[in-house]
Amino acid sequence: MFLKNTWYCAMWSPDLGDAPVAKTLLDTPVVLWREAGGAPVALEDRCCHRSLPLSLGKVIGHRMQCGYHGLEFDRTGACVRVPGQAHVPPGARVRSFPVVDRWNVIWIWMGDPAEADPAAIPALFWLKDPGWAAVRGTIPMKAHFQLLVDNLLDFTHVSYLHSRTISGDAAIESRIIGQATREENAVRFDRWMLNIPPPPMFKAAGEFKGHVDRWQLARWTPPSTVVLDIGCADAGTGAPEGDRRRGISIWSTHLITPSTERATYYNWCYARNFRLDDAAATDLLQKGGHQTFTEDTEAIEIQQANLDRSAGAPLVDINIDNAPLQARRMYARLLEAERATAGPARAAE
Amino acid sequence: MFLKNTWYCAMWSPDLGDAPVAKTLLDTPVVLWREAGGAPVALEDRCCHRSLPLSLGKVIGHRMQCGYHGLEFDRTGACVRVPGQAHVPPGARVRSFPVVDRWNVIWIWMGDPAEADPAAIPALFWLKDPGWAAVRGTIPMKAHFQLLVDNLLDFTHVSYLHSRTISGDAAIESRIIGQATREENAVRFDRWMLNIPPPPMFKAAGEFKGHVDRWQLARWTPPSTVVLDIGCADAGTGAPEGDRRRGISIWSTHLITPSTERATYYNWCYARNFRLDDAAATDLLQKGGHQTFTEDTEAIEIQQANLDRSAGAPLVDINIDNAPLQARRMYARLLEAERATAGPARAAE
Amino acid sequence: MFLKNTWYCAMWSPDLGDAPVAKTLLDTPVVLWREAGGAPVALEDRCCHRSLPLSLGKVIGHRMQCGYHGLEFDRTGACVRVPGQAHVPPGARVRSFPVVDRWNVIWIWMGDPAEADPAAIPALFWLKDPGWAAVRGTIPMKAHFQLLVDNLLDFTHVSYLHSRTISGDAAIESRIIGQATREENAVRFDRWMLNIPPPPMFKAAGEFKGHVDRWQLARWTPPSTVVLDIGCADAGTGAPEGDRRRGISIWSTHLITPSTERATYYNWCYARNFRLDDAAATDLLQKGGHQTFTEDTEAIEIQQANLDRSAGAPLVDINIDNAPLQARRMYARLLEAERATAGPARAAE
Repeated sequence: MFLKNTWYCAMWSPDLGDAPVAKTLLDTPVVLWREAGGAPVALEDRCCHRSLPLSLGKVIGHRMQCGYHGLEFDRTGACVRVPGQAHVPPGARVRSFPVVDRWNVIWIWMGDPAEADPAAIPALFWLKDPGWAAVRGTIPMKAHFQLLVDNLLDFTHVSYLHSRTISGDAAIESRIIGQATREENAVRFDRWMLNIPPPPMFKAAGEFKGHVDRWQLARWTPPSTVVLDIGCADAGTGAPEGDRRRGISIWSTHLITPSTERATYYNWCYARNFRLDDAAATDLLQKGGHQTFTEDTEAIEIQQANLDRSAGAPLVDINIDNAPLQARRMYARLLEAERATAGPARAAE
Repeated sequence: MFLKNTWYCAMWSPDLGDAPVAKTLLDTPVVLWREAGGAPVALEDRCCHRSLPLSLGKVIGHRMQCGYHGLEFDRTGACVRVPGQAHVPPGARVRSFPVVDRWNVIWIWMGDPAEADPAAIPALFWLKDPGWAAVRGTIPMKAHFQLLVDNLLDFTHVSYLHSRTISGDAAIESRIIGQATREENAVRFDRWMLNIPPPPMFKAAGEFKGHVDRWQLARWTPPSTVVLDIGCADAGTGAPEGDRRRGISIWSTHLITPSTERATYYNWCYARNFRLDDAAATDLLQKGGHQTFTEDTEAIEIQQANLDRSAGAPLVDINIDNAPLQARRMYARLLEAERATAGPARAAE
Repeated sequence: MFLKNTWYCAMWSPDLGDAPVAKTLLDTPVVLWREAGGAPVALEDRCCHRSLPLSLGKVIGHRMQCGYHGLEFDRTGACVRVPGQAHVPPGARVRSFPVVDRWNVIWIWMGDPAEADPAAIPALFWLKDPGWAAVRGTIPMKAHFQLLVDNLLDFTHVSYLHSRTISGDAAIESRIIGQATREENAVRFDRWMLNIPPPPMFKAAGEFKGHVDRWQLARWTPPSTVVLDIGCADAGTGAPEGDRRRGISIWSTHLITPSTERATYYNWCYARNFRLDDAAATDLLQKGGHQTFTEDTEAIEIQQANLDRSAGAPLVDINIDNAPLQARRMYARLLEAERATAGPARAAE
């Protein structure tokens, strides 16, 4: 049960070419490809004839040809050719999904196509902007997507789960939880560490004079986008007040897409606004991001398995759960509203 | 739910020696071996004492000895020795199944043994005949057997699924579907391509003068035997009318045996009536058959998985489905008749 | 459904250090470790906060620190620190289990802690005694534990299942079943082979004058401990009557611990009272034990799978089943008694 009338990241745009790609999104098999001219297409990944995944077929110009009996489909999902017969039988079509290629993301709308407004796509300009350098990846995760949102809206886990990778000074970090704020359509979680030594990676990149003011600012927007602004500035130069010109940032962007109730695509991107042409920094962030988010993925998969085998056993909440719980409540309300709007028939799906 | 009172191919006869072989046939674990003297034996693969598969045991003369506690069984399934005690307890027996070694096939009867008439075994003489050269194999397939019968009663898929192996000229082939014919106890599906260039393999083997008349004649007989007569003759020499002396044929024979609702043994054989001693042709057909039918197997397994996860979603029929649908209807009627005959008690199984 | 109010072998004591070890015991995830000072600890392997297994965390002095958000637990299961907050929320604790380190075994009590009396731990002194040399191992087995108890209370299977390892003269062994005896809180199964050639391993070790009297004495005590006294003495020197001073023994000890209904920890130990310092004998028994009990494990796993797929099919009992069936009946009575005592609420679990 997922929020449907919203845009999701189907995949990173640079990963999509003219070869078909299969994804299961919100419990639905989807095939994506880029047709002649470059426009992305997304259809249900199931031939309406005998159910073979279309992703096993071949892209031929503006059509997808099924790899079993050669039926051909256009981007609307209509079957437009059946080998060996002049007419296409009525009803020969598969679902098509609205898709938009923006900010290096293939956005897909799995809900009611009539409501798919590209203007509602979040404005994540830094994912594709000359002022930013980005590295990205996708990690398949065997767990419910909300466990990953929980993870990203808390920074204390960094000291424990990532003690061998991105953690800085655990003694400092574990004392400071941060502050949760509920906005109209978002949950923020901010942590500031003032006048401390810069953590290793920022120290190497930032040419700071000495101590820094360090920030970790998380913002979740429904259904499952989390942007972390992580940075440092020379201490006392106004960063907490809003002037971060004397600092550098990584905008760690997480476009989390539910696959099934127990599977998620973890699409992540590190975008930085410093040393844009530094290949070593790019390489470090590419490898570091993959390693760090794989640590999260592995822990969350084990957490999911343990939750499932102790289903219903009580959990104790602590202070750091404030932001994740607010996000969960907001998501639940949106889900309830969508199901109410859909009416009894669709709600019963 | 499978037709039971009929002969199935348990395995190819040359694959059976005196070592026990385990198969699950029609949802039943079966152990087969060849006893002293060469006669095949088939018993339920489950010791009546503590359920260990007998196939883990040892053949000792005319007996199978269980590998756990040493109980011995004869070919009727009767336990004839229990170590450490003089008498065999009443009821100590396992099911035995009628088996016949004919046409290089170990035929097995999984239904009522009283009805097992060897005369009902289909006369597939070309599988073991001095006028034919045969290669064969068995591919385990994770899908319902009827998806494979569907596959074999349609030739258009050859142009798409086998475009890299046995397909000839797709432009020609995809235009011509063929003709389905229902017989009293069979479904035929015939496709003729007249006066065309010979496809590569036949061209190499056939010493044709120029164009050929090419045929693909499929015949399904219940429960799951499909024989394809595939061949070419010099064009205009009477092949379509029935005189194929100026041509050469491969009789591609498919003895499909259900294992479970989602598993099937795909037993295939290519028998040819030309160049019998040509080792290169034999080798080519052995490897080519395995490769081609593995392509089918892989596609059908994916099809089965996709069918299962969209269970109940509508499928669109097209012209090529005529023969497969007739075969499915005939099978369903036979199944219904068998269950009606079996009476309420067995029908409720 | 297992007997709970009893001591089980959680693991061999020499296998436990200060690193956390995860086990699933009686359907419950448990983490074990040895805290500073050496005392073993056992807690439920599930953080009360967000369910991550504690076994992924770190032992810090007398505390276990969760690897996700850093909560710390003491040996009673109480959470004693939550990073970033001064107070631990009420109810923040996990189950702890009574554990005792005795006879080289970490004993654990999975039932009502109030009833956990260390005096009830069986007196298996030979597992840790200067007069005995012991080798040991743990084999995970995918089957119900009672199938392994059945196996150990019958010696005839040795001639068949272990014909390539520990079997002696099958012709002799398979004639003699042995004698089952039910005691108040145990089932014994004894087999004597008088005046026979010594089996190879004993012959090499025992310096016998000629023929021997050979014994195999099994004793099961609930819930799942089986001790086999296996030995030989010079023939006619009084061994059957009780004087075994002219002989040598291996006390093959099996501490079987249910993990789930289909998983078991097979903890085995060979303790011998001869050639204590003979490294070759130690090595032979270590490897031989592992090999032999792996043979049992593999057969029992296949047996379990075959039992499951023929669930409810009748089994035929034979003479050798006498001892195993008595043990099963005694276990069933104890289980029934425990559930009756627990009262309706817990019995309904």
